[in-house]
Amino acid sequence: METRSKPAPHSAITVPVIRKLLHRGARLRLARVLTKAHPVDVARLLSALQGSEREQAFAVVLEESSTSHVADVMSEMSPGDSLPLLSELSPDRIAKYLSEMSADDATNLASRLHDPLAAQVLALMEAEPAADVRELLEHEERTAGRIMTRNYFAQDEDVTIAEAVAALQKRSEEFEMVFYVYVVDKRDHPVGVVSLRKLLTTHPATQLKRLMVQDVISVSTSADQEEVARLVAEYNLLAIPVVDDEDKLVGIVTVDDVIDVLQEEAEEDLLALAGVSAEERVSTSAFRSLQLRAPWLLVNLATTFLPAYVIFLFDHSIQILPVLAALVTMPMGMGGNAATQTLTVVIRGLALNELSSVSNVALKQLLVAFGNGIINGVVAAALAVLISRRWMVGLVLGLAMVINMIVAGVSGVFIPVALRKLRIDPAVASTVFVTTFTDVGGSLSFLGLATILLKLWT
Amino acid sequence: METRSKPAPHSAITVPVIRKLLHRGARLRLARVLTKAHPVDVARLLSALQGSEREQAFAVVLEESSTSHVADVMSEMSPGDSLPLLSELSPDRIAKYLSEMSADDATNLASRLHDPLAAQVLALMEAEPAADVRELLEHEERTAGRIMTRNYFAQDEDVTIAEAVAALQKRSEEFEMVFYVYVVDKRDHPVGVVSLRKLLTTHPATQLKRLMVQDVISVSTSADQEEVARLVAEYNLLAIPVVDDEDKLVGIVTVDDVIDVLQEEAEEDLLALAGVSAEERVSTSAFRSLQLRAPWLLVNLATTFLPAYVIFLFDHSIQILPVLAALVTMPMGMGGNAATQTLTVVIRGLALNELSSVSNVALKQLLVAFGNGIINGVVAAALAVLISRRWMVGLVLGLAMVINMIVAGVSGVFIPVALRKLRIDPAVASTVFVTTFTDVGGSLSFLGLATILLKLWT
Repeated sequence: METRSKPAPHSAITVPVIRKLLHRGARLRLARVLTKAHPVDVARLLSALQGSEREQAFAVVLEESSTSHVADVMSEMSPGDSLPLLSELSPDRIAKYLSEMSADDATNLASRLHDPLAAQVLALMEAEPAADVRELLEHEERTAGRIMTRNYFAQDEDVTIAEAVAALQKRSEEFEMVFYVYVVDKRDHPVGVVSLRKLLTTHPATQLKRLMVQDVISVSTSADQEEVARLVAEYNLLAIPVVDDEDKLVGIVTVDDVIDVLQEEAEEDLLALAGVSAEERVSTSAFRSLQLRAPWLLVNLATTFLPAYVIFLFDHSIQILPVLAALVTMPMGMGGNAATQTLTVVIRGLALNELSSVSNVALKQLLVAFGNGIINGVVAAALAVLISRRWMVGLVLGLAMVINMIVAGVSGVFIPVALRKLRIDPAVASTVFVTTFTDVGGSLSFLGLATILLKLWT
Repeated sequence: METRSKPAPHSAITVPVIRKLLHRGARLRLARVLTKAHPVDVARLLSALQGSEREQAFAVVLEESSTSHVADVMSEMSPGDSLPLLSELSPDRIAKYLSEMSADDATNLASRLHDPLAAQVLALMEAEPAADVRELLEHEERTAGRIMTRNYFAQDEDVTIAEAVAALQKRSEEFEMVFYVYVVDKRDHPVGVVSLRKLLTTHPATQLKRLMVQDVISVSTSADQEEVARLVAEYNLLAIPVVDDEDKLVGIVTVDDVIDVLQEEAEEDLLALAGVSAEERVSTSAFRSLQLRAPWLLVNLATTFLPAYVIFLFDHSIQILPVLAALVTMPMGMGGNAATQTLTVVIRGLALNELSSVSNVALKQLLVAFGNGIINGVVAAALAVLISRRWMVGLVLGLAMVINMIVAGVSGVFIPVALRKLRIDPAVASTVFVTTFTDVGGSLSFLGLATILLKLWT
């Protein structure tokens, strides 16, 4: 969150180039490229490399760069990538790097070290960063208290601009990410905010309380990180103050961390809906991917067994009219597609807090489902009559389509809402339940109706 | 992107409260609540209300608030919500509000006004904002040039801190979102950046070029907004400078707009994968939802017809062994689930630029698919033997599961990659193609194998 004194993205630092240098053993040239590059670029490179190549490149970074450069690189990597590299080092060195990181990044890593090591590292860290990490560790993961920094600039409301500037100058090195001066009262409650621009452009004798913006938007340490991100995004803030139980200012969450939270949460939703672990990337090993994906597929296998069994129960009708076997897949599949649409809209509404009345939403989705059922039912019925040359089959398919669209619409609303009530992430678990409903709904309605009509007419 | 002089989120401004006031006709109280509230809260409220309630509330906002408050409210609404309200007004009033908005928001709205009105409004706007909007309109939608602001603070490299501060003070009102001083050379090329903190904490006689950070990360006006967002997010910037074809500084994109881009793009991907229009929310009317969703469902209906036809071709085998009709849905469904997993990982890899070697990724996905095919094939085969009491049926189901998992894995890699090459957004179109492959693959492999074995054994 500052204008780093590091070069811009450098074309020399790409995976193929680094790989070539590694294989040629061109260590000097490698050292020059890696130490001069922006930490973000080094981090991306290390994450993209694998196995011994990653270890070799990391060894060069460790030996040739300053402590703060290494710390910056680690901060920019995802913990899943940096932790295996870090845990190879001595507790002493880990402590050195963690001391140089911003408190939230250090805490994130420290909390993932296994236990005897974590305690050792904390004991070996410099006093001040260690205290910061201990403080942040007191708060639960994914809360404001865990992702905040205590590195903020606060001043008393009676202080003048000249005094505030002098204070900032004296402690300049501490604050790499100042964009606001937080104004607090005698009991440390945040009462206002002054931008650095105001500090620069207002008369130096003015007291902060005369020019501060009042009614500061703040969050408590226990606020969910998603809520923090939502507020920062909505109100266009650069940082949001965090207060403790007594409403005292204890930290700030900056916009760069908010962007990370937003990206993380959006990605998690996308992946969860598809049954993919947040850990998996294209670079994940085949074996690990298999481990991560197999459980989800087995859950789905269990659920596909249910509609198969429903169809099995109607094998007598299918024997009489085998075309039913072909057509039953249509209401099943269409129900799944329609349910996914409804589900996604509802999950999005839940995430954005736009879902005020469940019954209203359900009613509307019911109407949409009915409409789509009619449209698709008519088209499907026509196709079915064409393929089977029996108008009865078309009628049944059309009706089953309408029924299953309604099943899709209703389950697409109520399942995510119910899961949310049960405090289960609707993005993770909704799909599997909803498609089970629509698969059973589609097969049961189509074959059930067909069987009744078959009995009536034959 | 500043500390607005507006109150914090206010509990009084909720949909039920405002609704009650509207129905009671408590206009005075309504005016007080709406004019005192933060523009973000008013915008959210107006977006949540519908029909005549929205119009009534908007009328109160219009009549009782300052021009800049109305402009702020409009800026915070999505164009889909604000445009219908705006286009009811006279060109003159629209011009007044657009003149008060930041250039990117005004441009966004102006570009969506229908044509004679848009030209009228631009002609009626104040000279400077109109020039800004015209400039931004020259660039394509979703590029840096379209979402930038020309409201940045640039200084010559020879200027001293004292001179820069004086310049900032003189033009203070212009710059509501200054966090960096951009340092330019004689030809207006950006050569460095100085943070306001540095300005405050370094000796006033220092020349900017002595303390600026060099190697500024910048983008060209034609850069895709996703690329801009990626850079700002990755390098933790508050704003990124935008340069024209001659590398001259022409604007900046600020982090608040980047957050909007990131949220928009993430949401679009999520919605596109589910076949939902970005326009649709839980509050969209049933009729509009139906209009938006029906085309996607009809496309899907066409594709569900294909596997149905495949099954129909095997009706002779199904008549002999009706249990086949029940079990064919299992490899079809599982192929779809596995394909969605692969697809999501690949689309994510494409978005993050992590997909360097397609053949490597395809090979790995093939391995994962084979592994999942074996695991799920064995379980499914056991179930099939149990239900049908024929080991032949189990064997066929197991084999079909392996084959269709491979179909899923391969199509899950190649279809998004191919769509990307064809410059079609893979998130939008992949699902429908891939599930067609897996539906046909599942039915064809299972019923084909079964038919062959049936012929051999009977």
